[in-house]
Amino acid sequence: MEIEESAAAEQVVTPWEVSAPAGGSLHYDMLIDRFGCQRIDAAIVNRIARLTRRPQHRFLRRGIFFAHWDLNMILDLYEAGEKFYMYTGRGPSSESLHLGHLIPFMFTKYLQDVFKVPLVIQLSDDEKFSWKKNLTIAECERLARENAKDIIACGFDVERTFIFSNLNYVGREFYKNTLEVAKHVTYNNLRATYGITLEDHIGKVSYPPVQAPPAFASSFPQLFRGNDQLRCLIICAVDQDTYSRTIRDVAPKIGFQKPSLIESRFFPALQGENTKMSASDPKSEIYVTDSSEQIKAKVNKYAFSGGQDSVELHRKLGANLDVDVPIKYLEFFLEDDDELDHIKKEYKEGRMLTGEVKRRLIEVLSELVARHQRARAQVTEEMVDAFMAVRPLPNMFG
Amino acid sequence: MEIEESAAAEQVVTPWEVSAPAGGSLHYDMLIDRFGCQRIDAAIVNRIARLTRRPQHRFLRRGIFFAHWDLNMILDLYEAGEKFYMYTGRGPSSESLHLGHLIPFMFTKYLQDVFKVPLVIQLSDDEKFSWKKNLTIAECERLARENAKDIIACGFDVERTFIFSNLNYVGREFYKNTLEVAKHVTYNNLRATYGITLEDHIGKVSYPPVQAPPAFASSFPQLFRGNDQLRCLIICAVDQDTYSRTIRDVAPKIGFQKPSLIESRFFPALQGENTKMSASDPKSEIYVTDSSEQIKAKVNKYAFSGGQDSVELHRKLGANLDVDVPIKYLEFFLEDDDELDHIKKEYKEGRMLTGEVKRRLIEVLSELVARHQRARAQVTEEMVDAFMAVRPLPNMFG
Repeated sequence: MEIEESAAAEQVVTPWEVSAPAGGSLHYDMLIDRFGCQRIDAAIVNRIARLTRRPQHRFLRRGIFFAHWDLNMILDLYEAGEKFYMYTGRGPSSESLHLGHLIPFMFTKYLQDVFKVPLVIQLSDDEKFSWKKNLTIAECERLARENAKDIIACGFDVERTFIFSNLNYVGREFYKNTLEVAKHVTYNNLRATYGITLEDHIGKVSYPPVQAPPAFASSFPQLFRGNDQLRCLIICAVDQDTYSRTIRDVAPKIGFQKPSLIESRFFPALQGENTKMSASDPKSEIYVTDSSEQIKAKVNKYAFSGGQDSVELHRKLGANLDVDVPIKYLEFFLEDDDELDHIKKEYKEGRMLTGEVKRRLIEVLSELVARHQRARAQVTEEMVDAFMAVRPLPNMFG
Repeated sequence: MEIEESAAAEQVVTPWEVSAPAGGSLHYDMLIDRFGCQRIDAAIVNRIARLTRRPQHRFLRRGIFFAHWDLNMILDLYEAGEKFYMYTGRGPSSESLHLGHLIPFMFTKYLQDVFKVPLVIQLSDDEKFSWKKNLTIAECERLARENAKDIIACGFDVERTFIFSNLNYVGREFYKNTLEVAKHVTYNNLRATYGITLEDHIGKVSYPPVQAPPAFASSFPQLFRGNDQLRCLIICAVDQDTYSRTIRDVAPKIGFQKPSLIESRFFPALQGENTKMSASDPKSEIYVTDSSEQIKAKVNKYAFSGGQDSVELHRKLGANLDVDVPIKYLEFFLEDDDELDHIKKEYKEGRMLTGEVKRRLIEVLSELVARHQRARAQVTEEMVDAFMAVRPLPNMFG
C-alpha cells in the first residue's frame, strides 16, 4: 500500500504532462482509480469480438486500450441494431506524426471497419495556435492539412469520415455548443484541471470548450440533423480523460447524451515511460517519415533496454520486461501472439539478448512505416478536400 | 481640484456599470482624461461639416458625440478620396430598444448618408447568452432578429450594410481573428478591466475577443477581400471605451490598423444620470414600442426635474439644468437650436415651469417614437434576411 501511494504521488498524467515514477513505469490501475473510469476486461473484449464476429484486436487483447466510460452502452446500441458515431482527433503541432500518434487512428480505423459507423476527426489547429507562441494561423492550417494526409493514410472510409480543422469549421451549431459548454465551466475549474495561470492569455482559457462539441451530434447538422441525441464514442489516449470528464459532466446539463469513451495507454518514448513522446525531441521518437536506416539507428541507439549490462549477467538474470522499450513496442505492433510470447519468455529468461529483440523490432517497425509511407504517397490534395468537405454522408451507416 | 478628485472617485464607467457622483451628473472631461481619448472640438465638427457639405449634426454641435480616437485619420482618408468602413453593434438583451439604444444607430445612419461607406453591425447575441443566466441560444437568436428590425428601421442602406448575429457569423476568418486577439490578452488584463471573477464561467472570459474582429477588415472576406488594411471607424457610447482600447492596443500586434472611434455621452435614465438606462427597469426608460400615452405618463411621472419644489421658489431661483432630465432629452432630440436655447433660458430663469418643458418633450418624443414605429412596421422578414445575408456589397462605396 505504501509503495503504491508513493508511486501515485510521483506519477503525473494530464493532457500536458505524463511522467512515471522515477525508474518505473506508469501504474494504469491507479489511473483508473483516480479518474473513475472502468477497466476494459476480458468480458468486454470478448463481447466486442462476438458482436462484430471478428478476432480480438491486438490493442484490446493486450490491454493497450485499457479503460472506458460507458462502452457497454455503445455495444448495447450496436447489438440492438441502433446507431452511434465516433469522435477522435489530433492537435497538429508537428509536420509529421510519430508512431504514438498513429495508435488512436489505427484503432479507430479498426472500429470503423467493424462497426460501420460515421466518424468525425477534429484537428485542433486553433489550440495549437493558442498554445504555441510562434506558430501563425497559416502555419497551423498547413500542419493540420499535412497531418490530415497521415490520418487518411490510415485507411479511413471517405464515405463515413469527416475530418475538420477547427480554424475553418468552428461556427454556427458548433460555436453555439462551445458557448453552452463554456457556461458550465468556471475559470477556477479550468485552473485546477489544466494548470492555466492568471498570467496566461485567454486563448488558453477559451480552448477547452472547443474540444467538447464534437461529442454532440448537433455540432454536425450536415451529418446528423434531426438526430441530436445520437450517441458518441470517443477514442483517445488516457491523458485526454481530463477533457472527457468535463464533457461528460456538462453533457446532461445542456441536454445532450454523455459520450462513451475508450482510452489507450501511452505509447512510450524510446527512452522509456518517464515522459510521453513529444513531437519536440526527434531522438525520443520514430516518425512515420523515418527511413529504415533511421529506424534502425534510433532503436539501436536510444530504445531503453531492460537487459543486463553484460552478456554474462543477462544470461544469468534475464531482462526486466517492465521497463524494456523494445518489448513494449512489440506489444503494440507485433501481431503474432505466439511469437511475442516466445520473445518475452526467451528474453526474460536471458536466452535472448537485447540486440536480437531490437532486430525483430526494427523489422516490424520498418515494415509498418514503409506501409504507411506508401499509403500516404497515394493521398492527393483532392482526397484531403474530399475528407474535409462540409457535406452530408448519405451512406455513413451503410 | 479636490472636488474634481472626489467626484472622479465616485463616478464609475465600464461596459457593465455607469454611475455619476451622488446627486450630480457625469464628468465627461474626466472620462477623457482617464481614458486618454481626445475631445471632439469645434475644429473637428466644422471639418466634418465642410468635408461632407452638410450642416453639423445636432449630436456633434451639442457635444453628444464628444470623444474620439484618431477621427482625423478617417477624415484625412475621406478628404483624399480614400475608403474606410464603419462598425457599430448592440447586445440584444431585450425584446425592444429604448431611446438610448437608438442614439448610436441614428448617428451611424447619418454618417453612412454623408460618407457613403459600408457598415457592419454586430449583434452580440453570444455575449448575451453568456452573461444572462436564463436565456437560451434560441431566445438570444430571436432577440437579435427582433432588434435587427429596429436597427433597420433607423434607415440604413441595404446596399452598404451587413448586420450579423455572432451566434451565426463567428467562424473562419472572424474566428481566426478572435484567436489572434485572445493571444494578446491575459486573464489578469480581463479581470482588471471587466471585473470578471475566478468563479465566473469561462464564457465571460471568451467573449471580449469576439468584440474585436469587426474592427479588422479581414473578418469580412465577402466584403473586403484583398483589402485587409482598410481602416475602420467604430461608433459607440463611451462605456465601450474599455473594449476599444483593448482593440487598439492589440491591432498593431496582429498586423492590423488601429480602428478610429467616435464615442457618445450616455443617454440618461428618466431618473437621472446616476445609472445608465438599463433594459431591465421599464420605469426608467422610454421604449420605441411605447404609445404616446405611455410616453406622456412616464415623462410626467418619472423624468427627474431640476425645477424647484414650489412655483414660488421656481419663479425666484429657476431650474438647475445640469440635473434636469427633460432638458437633457431635448438636447438629444429637439432639432431646433433656437427653440432649445429659448427653453433652456426661460426654464433656467424660472419663467418656464417643469410642466411646460415636459409637455414639449412629450411632443418631441411621441413624434420620434411614432415615426420609428411606422418605419419598423415596414420591415419584413425578407428585409432582415437581406441585411443579414453573408454577401458581397458591390456598390458599398458608390
